[in-house]
Amino acid sequence: METIRHSLAHILALSIKELYSNVKFGTGPAIDNGFYYDLETEKPITEESLKKIEKKMREIIKKDIAFEKEQITKEQAKKLFKDQPYKLEILKDIETDKVTIYKTGDFIDLCGGPHVESTKELNSKAFKLDKVAGAYFRGNENNPMLTRIYGLAFNTEEELENFLKLREEAEKRDHRKIGKDLDLFNTDEEVGIGLILWHPKGAILWRIIEDFWYKKHLENDYELVRTPHIGNRRLWEHSGHWGFYSSSMYPPLETGQSLEDLQNKKENTESEQFLLKPMNCPFHVSIYNSKPHSYRELPLRWAEAGTVYRFEKKGELSGLTRVRGFTQDDAHIICRKDQVEEELKKVIDFILFMYKAFGFDVESVNVYLSLRDPKDKDKYAGNDAGWNFTESVLRKVAKEKKLNFKEELGEAAFYGPKLDFKIKDVLGREWQCSTLQFDFNLPERFNMTFVNEKGEKEKPYMLHRALFGSFERFIGLLIEHYAGAFPFWLSPIQIKILPVSDKFIDYAKEIKEQLKDYRIQISDEKETISKKIRQGEMEKTPYLLIVGEKEETAKTISIRKRSHGDLGTKTIEEFKNIIIKEK
Amino acid sequence: METIRHSLAHILALSIKELYSNVKFGTGPAIDNGFYYDLETEKPITEESLKKIEKKMREIIKKDIAFEKEQITKEQAKKLFKDQPYKLEILKDIETDKVTIYKTGDFIDLCGGPHVESTKELNSKAFKLDKVAGAYFRGNENNPMLTRIYGLAFNTEEELENFLKLREEAEKRDHRKIGKDLDLFNTDEEVGIGLILWHPKGAILWRIIEDFWYKKHLENDYELVRTPHIGNRRLWEHSGHWGFYSSSMYPPLETGQSLEDLQNKKENTESEQFLLKPMNCPFHVSIYNSKPHSYRELPLRWAEAGTVYRFEKKGELSGLTRVRGFTQDDAHIICRKDQVEEELKKVIDFILFMYKAFGFDVESVNVYLSLRDPKDKDKYAGNDAGWNFTESVLRKVAKEKKLNFKEELGEAAFYGPKLDFKIKDVLGREWQCSTLQFDFNLPERFNMTFVNEKGEKEKPYMLHRALFGSFERFIGLLIEHYAGAFPFWLSPIQIKILPVSDKFIDYAKEIKEQLKDYRIQISDEKETISKKIRQGEMEKTPYLLIVGEKEETAKTISIRKRSHGDLGTKTIEEFKNIIIKEK
Repeated sequence: METIRHSLAHILALSIKELYSNVKFGTGPAIDNGFYYDLETEKPITEESLKKIEKKMREIIKKDIAFEKEQITKEQAKKLFKDQPYKLEILKDIETDKVTIYKTGDFIDLCGGPHVESTKELNSKAFKLDKVAGAYFRGNENNPMLTRIYGLAFNTEEELENFLKLREEAEKRDHRKIGKDLDLFNTDEEVGIGLILWHPKGAILWRIIEDFWYKKHLENDYELVRTPHIGNRRLWEHSGHWGFYSSSMYPPLETGQSLEDLQNKKENTESEQFLLKPMNCPFHVSIYNSKPHSYRELPLRWAEAGTVYRFEKKGELSGLTRVRGFTQDDAHIICRKDQVEEELKKVIDFILFMYKAFGFDVESVNVYLSLRDPKDKDKYAGNDAGWNFTESVLRKVAKEKKLNFKEELGEAAFYGPKLDFKIKDVLGREWQCSTLQFDFNLPERFNMTFVNEKGEKEKPYMLHRALFGSFERFIGLLIEHYAGAFPFWLSPIQIKILPVSDKFIDYAKEIKEQLKDYRIQISDEKETISKKIRQGEMEKTPYLLIVGEKEETAKTISIRKRSHGDLGTKTIEEFKNIIIKEK
Repeated sequence: METIRHSLAHILALSIKELYSNVKFGTGPAIDNGFYYDLETEKPITEESLKKIEKKMREIIKKDIAFEKEQITKEQAKKLFKDQPYKLEILKDIETDKVTIYKTGDFIDLCGGPHVESTKELNSKAFKLDKVAGAYFRGNENNPMLTRIYGLAFNTEEELENFLKLREEAEKRDHRKIGKDLDLFNTDEEVGIGLILWHPKGAILWRIIEDFWYKKHLENDYELVRTPHIGNRRLWEHSGHWGFYSSSMYPPLETGQSLEDLQNKKENTESEQFLLKPMNCPFHVSIYNSKPHSYRELPLRWAEAGTVYRFEKKGELSGLTRVRGFTQDDAHIICRKDQVEEELKKVIDFILFMYKAFGFDVESVNVYLSLRDPKDKDKYAGNDAGWNFTESVLRKVAKEKKLNFKEELGEAAFYGPKLDFKIKDVLGREWQCSTLQFDFNLPERFNMTFVNEKGEKEKPYMLHRALFGSFERFIGLLIEHYAGAFPFWLSPIQIKILPVSDKFIDYAKEIKEQLKDYRIQISDEKETISKKIRQGEMEKTPYLLIVGEKEETAKTISIRKRSHGDLGTKTIEEFKNIIIKEK
């Protein structure tokens, strides 16, 4: 496939050469799903020109032109490309004496290949030019800006169509777009990029999920803890985070020390440095270590929806999925060795329960078992016995729970082996979600102990785990999975009452009162009823209740159900019987 | 009273002079509830000596000794106090030529008075020496450390006894002590002082309160919002907080700029400064300003339990009541002028509802109406019309709601007038709680508007309000108000099942399953039943259920109710009928 895509890049270049004069070529590689070529033309190439270029490409392909490979000396190449400044630039960096070129009709490229033998191997119906963008030559902003033409290419026409359909669907479902349309959240440069401001509908969605999360944790015999968002730098040095994780952390803030003091290198012995927490763990350890523990107290399962801050690079930020402040649905399980297997099984059951509860297909979950690299044992915390035990018990429970899992040697964190869970959304796209990790590092560094049955101090096993991973990411996933049409129990507004005119607002309020166990809104704008319906549908409200003269007189409501349309006129009691099944 | 207390300080000094040799006297003023004297003795004075000194004081009082006032020159005073180095120090700072001295028997003090005429005016039964502490002369740590003897003094013996009883009760109720005894929270110097770590029982208490708070807000037609804990310094400059509030804020952290850069005064244009939020307001404003608003949308009521960080001085930190990170139970109401009165009334009703719900006496609430200083109008944001309207409407609703309120001229914040609410705990102590404030500053600075009925842009009225003030403080108050014996619905553990021995743990689990709607714990330690009962009582558990042979056979439980004792043996159904009334 890569060969085909790369060959199409050359055909694209040849077409441009035939259609435009004085073209300077940059580079044209194969990429995921297709190819591109960077080039410079006198007459600018716009999106509108793509159809014409595509047509030219198809004509060329039909001609059955060969891709001819040739080896020439660098000197010969310099002459050959004397009118191609970008090719000459590339040549400068080639250190070998000989270079490879490919000829396709009139187009000659400095290129290592491989390519197809001839254009007849290319499927004219399985590619499509996609878009035009600007790109600095070699990605360096000091270089000139070239025109980049993107193409898509697959094995078959069907594959191309599927890709286009999926992409269109994904664009419609983009949580950034839906988040705006449904008024769920925004970000504000003045507040700081990557920091989410949740609007009322987003915040209630969050709260519903958080409530459910807490309730299920209590039912599963977890306890809650609650910890601050900052900690003294000493804590993060003790935990090791400042040593191995500081590049992802916000820099310290320093109390008792003014900026001027710092600049004048004046030391203030009273000053302390605080760091925004990138993880909750050291705080949970601090709570554990605040008193002695007996083997009879274990296992302890401590959960916290704790908001953490990580300084992600600007360019990597994206909507809710890559942010600078997010809430881990964290828990730490501290237990004895003889409890480890049971605890792992419970966590796995809990993870799968959560996926089901939010409408994901449990069968399609892929799991990755990350093990240490046995050739490089020195770089890991903990000891052989601990690693061997935890790796084998992870493997054992993954098998027993019939997880679809893959082992990955050398992928473990330095502090312990782990299971990572990826779920598929309705479009089949994978999302990293839950994680279940052993930690040998923190119990060692903070000297965590409990008194065992023999009255001796023993080190407990410590597990980190998250079910969603992050609330923000998970909500982003839910938005895309449901395209904003959340199930009834998650909908910020479950029912919207639409009075036909202001005259029926009182009756609407009466209905609202009778349905007060639900999240309900009256649409009291001065709009026509058809506009109100359209608005309610755009907001993806599960139920719209229309009330006018007829309904008020008969003490009924006219019901429209999302993606079902008109359910007819019913009494409130009948409606209650319908929605009770939604819960 | 102050005269009596001050005179007792002299009697204390005279007693010491008679009992100890070579005493050097510092100062001895009247203070709240009593007096003290700072002095230096060769033989150390301990708590054990206080009885003896007290006895001596009573003997002196009985003798009816006069307090004789005299004016002498500074030179005479220097001679008189030649063996009293601390008095000589004080003399140095006196700029007048003449000084006043008081003679009481053998003791002469450099002192302006006033004092009683004679010791017979002092009530021997209404004072008590309290404790011994160390104190630097004149509070300066560069001066020598003196011995400070504290005394308590009141008008009557009864007042003294009441004070002692109240203090004893307050000490028993100290939330720091109970917080430790009931395992609710701790702080850890490594994490940072003033930052609370909530243990499982504290975190569940918090969650119950938070749940209730959110539920009631939704019922009262509030919406939720959720905002980050940090914001760019530009935001805080725009809001004005960085200008007028920075001394209470944690210093900024600076991204993209290393400590070394700072020290070398190297500027990084990519760098940004972030500040921990000391308030939630600017974020709520940012959400408001993220889209246009119509008059029909108002009032908006946006609530957030938002954790804020303020850098309080080390010496001012105390338990949960004065911390460096706390959670405001914040809301902002943004409304039209014609909605202001109605909104204020609703907030007042909500405040009083909350006090009642948590068991406080609504009748004893004191309210303070803070108005601007009309002589100093320039220092306030907003205009005359706005101030006149909001001050008078606050006064009007305070009267209509029959609040016990006092007006305080010049006590308003620069940004608007406010009502502050203080509630009394079971010991009669006042706690600052709710606040309801207008804000003219933020709508101006952020140019907040809505489109009114005429299609014109208009500035909305903005109200800040908090019901608890801070979750941390309010929980501290609840702990002291209830002395840790929380009402059933707030108790972290509502029911504890105590199996007489391990044999009955399975039966205990059966009972637990039947009561799973409640927060319930099985006491499975290897302890005698009487020790388990004692433990359960110390933990202030509302109900203890004892299960043994007899109960298992009869399918019953033996019930002990907190502060009621034995309720006898009952079936689970009977017990459920008892606790259903607690909810």
